[in-house]
Amino acid sequence: MSMNEAIHKLMNHRSIRKFKQEPVTKEQLVTIIRAAQMASTSSNMQAYSVIQINDRDKRSRLAALAGNQAYVEECPVFLVWCADLYRLKTACGFAEGEGYIGTTENLVVAITDTALAAQNAVVAAESMGLGAVYIGGIRNQIKEVSALLKLPEYVIPVYGMCLGYPDQSPSIRPRLPYEAVLHEDVYSAENYENLIQAYDETMKQYMLDRTNGTKDTNWTQAMQVKLGTPSRLHMKEFISSQRFWDHDRKAPDSKA
Amino acid sequence: MSMNEAIHKLMNHRSIRKFKQEPVTKEQLVTIIRAAQMASTSSNMQAYSVIQINDRDKRSRLAALAGNQAYVEECPVFLVWCADLYRLKTACGFAEGEGYIGTTENLVVAITDTALAAQNAVVAAESMGLGAVYIGGIRNQIKEVSALLKLPEYVIPVYGMCLGYPDQSPSIRPRLPYEAVLHEDVYSAENYENLIQAYDETMKQYMLDRTNGTKDTNWTQAMQVKLGTPSRLHMKEFISSQRFWDHDRKAPDSKA
Repeated sequence: MSMNEAIHKLMNHRSIRKFKQEPVTKEQLVTIIRAAQMASTSSNMQAYSVIQINDRDKRSRLAALAGNQAYVEECPVFLVWCADLYRLKTACGFAEGEGYIGTTENLVVAITDTALAAQNAVVAAESMGLGAVYIGGIRNQIKEVSALLKLPEYVIPVYGMCLGYPDQSPSIRPRLPYEAVLHEDVYSAENYENLIQAYDETMKQYMLDRTNGTKDTNWTQAMQVKLGTPSRLHMKEFISSQRFWDHDRKAPDSKA
Repeated sequence: MSMNEAIHKLMNHRSIRKFKQEPVTKEQLVTIIRAAQMASTSSNMQAYSVIQINDRDKRSRLAALAGNQAYVEECPVFLVWCADLYRLKTACGFAEGEGYIGTTENLVVAITDTALAAQNAVVAAESMGLGAVYIGGIRNQIKEVSALLKLPEYVIPVYGMCLGYPDQSPSIRPRLPYEAVLHEDVYSAENYENLIQAYDETMKQYMLDRTNGTKDTNWTQAMQVKLGTPSRLHMKEFISSQRFWDHDRKAPDSKA
């Protein structure tokens, strides 16, 4: 089967962190958001919001909070994608304590709804010749980010997103062999060792190429550093403070 | 700006629940999975796995566990998308208690990685003329589903996905006005009342059309029922039992 144009575009994805000055129009942004909204959403809950940051002071504050990432400040469009149960709570008009808004189930739904929409936004943006990068760094100081954006209860900022016309053409980062991700009938770790070893070799070469031979970190090594280091351990408390776990214990477990 | 082909496809998304017998080839599936893998992933963690269910008994058991959804049993390809930190743990080779695998941060990362990949899979599938539907119902009895698929610790099944050639052409379900989703600089609920009222009217008409005038439930009413009813309150305990919250309290909070 020959690769169609859409798949060709997906296969050529890379994160873009340097953008041309050329602006993204309001019309383009609205098209991107509408395309994002057409992603599937659990029971039509549409449990996400997108905050476009135009204010220069807010941009520079966010760039600092995200770990001094200059492109957060400089990119033509910066969006913050939020898991949002607040709009649903408002729509339902529940009294305090009524309903099942803040549950782990709805946390999973809201984070998922947010990501499905965000990924459609990336696909839509890239189809227009724009580039994008997700900014997980906004979770570094998530309370400060939430205060800056005046997020109410039941809303969590999950990641930022820079959009604009690419002013760089980074190489495509290889992924795990598909056999390491795709299982049949049951979960199987049987071939992980071989598959990860092969990927480590690929990633080592990729790192050497990207750093002109100065760095040869493979995937396993990168993950050992990443997961050996405490990262954003405030997330549990923050999510709790936003009331996403208020209602889990209200009623006997339901299978419905 | 005229709508390009990719955006046209995104705007025409609808969930497909009835499929032709025509099979999806292995080559098509591999292309879909490879396209899924090219979605962004937090720090290259690739924290997800996909389990393709071919075994007929497992299919029929999963269909029953998901609430007797016949299409789970009958669709040409059925996938279970899992948030997966187990592969990372294996790769890192950490001893018991070492590292920061099971944290709320990594739960958010894994659910997000899973959804970004899954949505790329849907876009890829639809570009081939296939249809898809997400099956949140596999969370109804998530422990039983996990046992059936032999999921190890640090793995959570998030949703199923049916794929195949569409044998139905449902109408497109309208979404909230984009103004209800897109905010500027700060979160604003100011216009929710008007925007939701407009959407309620749209959804009422959509329901009337879809049910030949027998049902006129609007969005607010549907959400009141949905969120007024306990749903999957076992999720918190299940995620905990899969060890996703083992390491949150291991070290003092880090902003890094």
